[in-house]
Amino acid sequence: AGHCARLVASRPFEVAIVVLIMANGVVLGIETYPNLGAAGPVLRWTELMFRAAFVVEITIRILAYGRRPQDFFRHGWNVFDLLVTAAIFIPGLHGDSGVLRFIRVARVLRLVRFSPGLRTIVTALWRSLPGVAGFLALAAVTLYVYGMAGWLIFGDRYPEQYGDIGRSLVTLFVLLSLETLPDLLEQGLEVSPWTLLYYVSFVMIAVNLLLNILIAVIVNSMEE
Amino acid sequence: AGHCARLVASRPFEVAIVVLIMANGVVLGIETYPNLGAAGPVLRWTELMFRAAFVVEITIRILAYGRRPQDFFRHGWNVFDLLVTAAIFIPGLHGDSGVLRFIRVARVLRLVRFSPGLRTIVTALWRSLPGVAGFLALAAVTLYVYGMAGWLIFGDRYPEQYGDIGRSLVTLFVLLSLETLPDLLEQGLEVSPWTLLYYVSFVMIAVNLLLNILIAVIVNSMEE
Amino acid sequence: AGHCARLVASRPFEVAIVVLIMANGVVLGIETYPNLGAAGPVLRWTELMFRAAFVVEITIRILAYGRRPQDFFRHGWNVFDLLVTAAIFIPGLHGDSGVLRFIRVARVLRLVRFSPGLRTIVTALWRSLPGVAGFLALAAVTLYVYGMAGWLIFGDRYPEQYGDIGRSLVTLFVLLSLETLPDLLEQGLEVSPWTLLYYVSFVMIAVNLLLNILIAVIVNSMEE
Amino acid sequence: AGHCARLVASRPFEVAIVVLIMANGVVLGIETYPNLGAAGPVLRWTELMFRAAFVVEITIRILAYGRRPQDFFRHGWNVFDLLVTAAIFIPGLHGDSGVLRFIRVARVLRLVRFSPGLRTIVTALWRSLPGVAGFLALAAVTLYVYGMAGWLIFGDRYPEQYGDIGRSLVTLFVLLSLETLPDLLEQGLEVSPWTLLYYVSFVMIAVNLLLNILIAVIVNSMEE
Ligand code: NA
Ligand code: NA
Repeated sequence: AGHCARLVASRPFEVAIVVLIMANGVVLGIETYPNLGAAGPVLRWTELMFRAAFVVEITIRILAYGRRPQDFFRHGWNVFDLLVTAAIFIPGLHGDSGVLRFIRVARVLRLVRFSPGLRTIVTALWRSLPGVAGFLALAAVTLYVYGMAGWLIFGDRYPEQYGDIGRSLVTLFVLLSLETLPDLLEQGLEVSPWTLLYYVSFVMIAVNLLLNILIAVIVNSMEE
Repeated sequence: AGHCARLVASRPFEVAIVVLIMANGVVLGIETYPNLGAAGPVLRWTELMFRAAFVVEITIRILAYGRRPQDFFRHGWNVFDLLVTAAIFIPGLHGDSGVLRFIRVARVLRLVRFSPGLRTIVTALWRSLPGVAGFLALAAVTLYVYGMAGWLIFGDRYPEQYGDIGRSLVTLFVLLSLETLPDLLEQGLEVSPWTLLYYVSFVMIAVNLLLNILIAVIVNSMEE
Repeated sequence: AGHCARLVASRPFEVAIVVLIMANGVVLGIETYPNLGAAGPVLRWTELMFRAAFVVEITIRILAYGRRPQDFFRHGWNVFDLLVTAAIFIPGLHGDSGVLRFIRVARVLRLVRFSPGLRTIVTALWRSLPGVAGFLALAAVTLYVYGMAGWLIFGDRYPEQYGDIGRSLVTLFVLLSLETLPDLLEQGLEVSPWTLLYYVSFVMIAVNLLLNILIAVIVNSMEE
Repeated sequence: AGHCARLVASRPFEVAIVVLIMANGVVLGIETYPNLGAAGPVLRWTELMFRAAFVVEITIRILAYGRRPQDFFRHGWNVFDLLVTAAIFIPGLHGDSGVLRFIRVARVLRLVRFSPGLRTIVTALWRSLPGVAGFLALAAVTLYVYGMAGWLIFGDRYPEQYGDIGRSLVTLFVLLSLETLPDLLEQGLEVSPWTLLYYVSFVMIAVNLLLNILIAVIVNSMEE
């Protein structure tokens, strides 16, 4: 156990795993190209090697906890590693099933674990969420009310965009990117010039809310 | 009265009303889908229940003020609640009239009242307006002058975009999203390469103004 | 002279002129609509009244300087006022000539003079220019080099976008709005996947430069 | 040597070179226009003059280091100058070959050397890179994982956008500009409403990451 603990904490072990994960990512990328020809079987064989390597890695990590293997589960990343590594051996998931492919892709996310910088950023991003939760709730209420109003105003005339609350919400979410503003405004002007009020007020409230989310995040991160 | 006052201030009362409003919002959303079949009458019956519940709520709120019911009107949200709840019983508005539907949607906005966080944000957004009013006035003057100039330059050739001051203003407002920049620039180049000056100067002045509105808002919110 | 000086500095005089300019702006806006019918002659008559009023205003302003009328020209806004008011009487400019129409629109800009808030903002915007001049120069060099490179790479294949340095610069200026990124990238991929380097590097350098202009402006305005 | 050193450090020398580079840039720009007629030979002759002038300049710069010419190579800009000036004389590159044209354009970049302001900005931009490197790495991992997921979800149905990891990455990079959001979202909704999760989460994570890169850059530049 002490042997394993020292190995896990050593620099070469970390470097080896990072290289393995990156190589795995590259192989996964190459596999997306069709007509690989002779390279196909090689890649499938490589996948088995990666699997074996990751199983060895996770076993060493568990052994490193010695007589208290339950402590292994205290760290979120350990749990993630185990899930990603073990999921491949779930009986139902054989061959190239869709779920299995997603799990293989998820391995790449493990890279974040090995970089203190990335880990700090992910933690910071995670912690900034509560500070903007209020704004997001307000944005959700605003989007919903405008979605309902949009359905009332345009529902009959433009069912494609405002046929039900679901479509209205998608239309207004996309409008946040301002991409569809010219088309929607023109569409609205055909109904009535008063629909300008609907779109202009939505855009200005939305931009104002996004701006204040931005400020909340900046102020938050400066206080830290 | 004391009984009502204690009830209104109690946590369970607040939670119950929030749940009611949210449920009402969900039902309003479901009603936007066509072909509800058997669910239709159920939803109409639910609406009557929500109405009754909100009437009870507003009555309790008024009674809570005891012998000074006029104090009820001191709080903006109370007035908003009363309007939204009472408007349904205005004689002229029967059945599924358009106004009535908007009033029902406006109920969802009452959610803001119950979250101290949301209330704070709305107040902050409201207070940040005077700080940017000057910039908005300047933006309005700029938009108007460019609108008139746009009509003078392009009015005859592109009546769709610059046929009168109204269309010019809509065209330039949409241009603020930069969406129509490529098309308008190309259109302008067909008239003369000098129209580049018109569009490039407009975009740079507009971006500069928006930037300074952003800064004014940030500086304002940091001083608080 | 003392009489005029007191009048010019008085609040009612200011309010009257602001109302006049705004009314003038509204009339100019109404004039952009075709088929005004009977309102046409009325509007033309109104224009003459506005002219007379502005001539009276500028005369009072000059008289207010008493025996030192040359001091009138010390203030930029006075000069602007005189030019805008006097230009209408230049012999060559009769009737509805284009230049005259632009001069009439320029009157609306005089509104800025009367609001201390707007004047402060315009001054601040003007003063922030030197702080970003370096970035703008760097942006110009970058745009020029990428424009020349774009002509070398795409000039023969896409003369519409990169046929000469002028078109290249317009193409890349529009690309700053990111509007044409999808089309240009696709166009480039048809030439060679290496053109991705051209566009991705341009977008990243441009976004980085714009970001740093933003920061320079923020830092500048916070120091004040 | 002392003579040359004094000349290189003198203001007139600097101004002369800046004027030369700018004139060269203008000539290069003029050369991009077709049908130059009689001006063609003149421009080719001008190019030879610029070449000669830059060779003289670089010779003076090297001589300025006197007995320690190796010190010339200590400054990055000197090396850049020498490469740009000498590359034209590499035997294989004759006439109007493509590489030669790029080298001639690169001369314009030398302008940065002569402005202390521009040099400071370029240095600042360069130094701000490490502060955002972590975010860029995280963005790369996110892009790669979403690219793989996009290939798994849409690869068969939309090979144009998600046919292999390369196309997926281009599609998602372009999506960062939000330009293609409406089209991709609609495309996704034809597969399943659940694909909304894919796009909405990608956009929100991407916007959040870009926002934090912005904040990192602002905080960095304020500490300096
Ligand atoms: Na856009
Ligand atoms: Na677009």
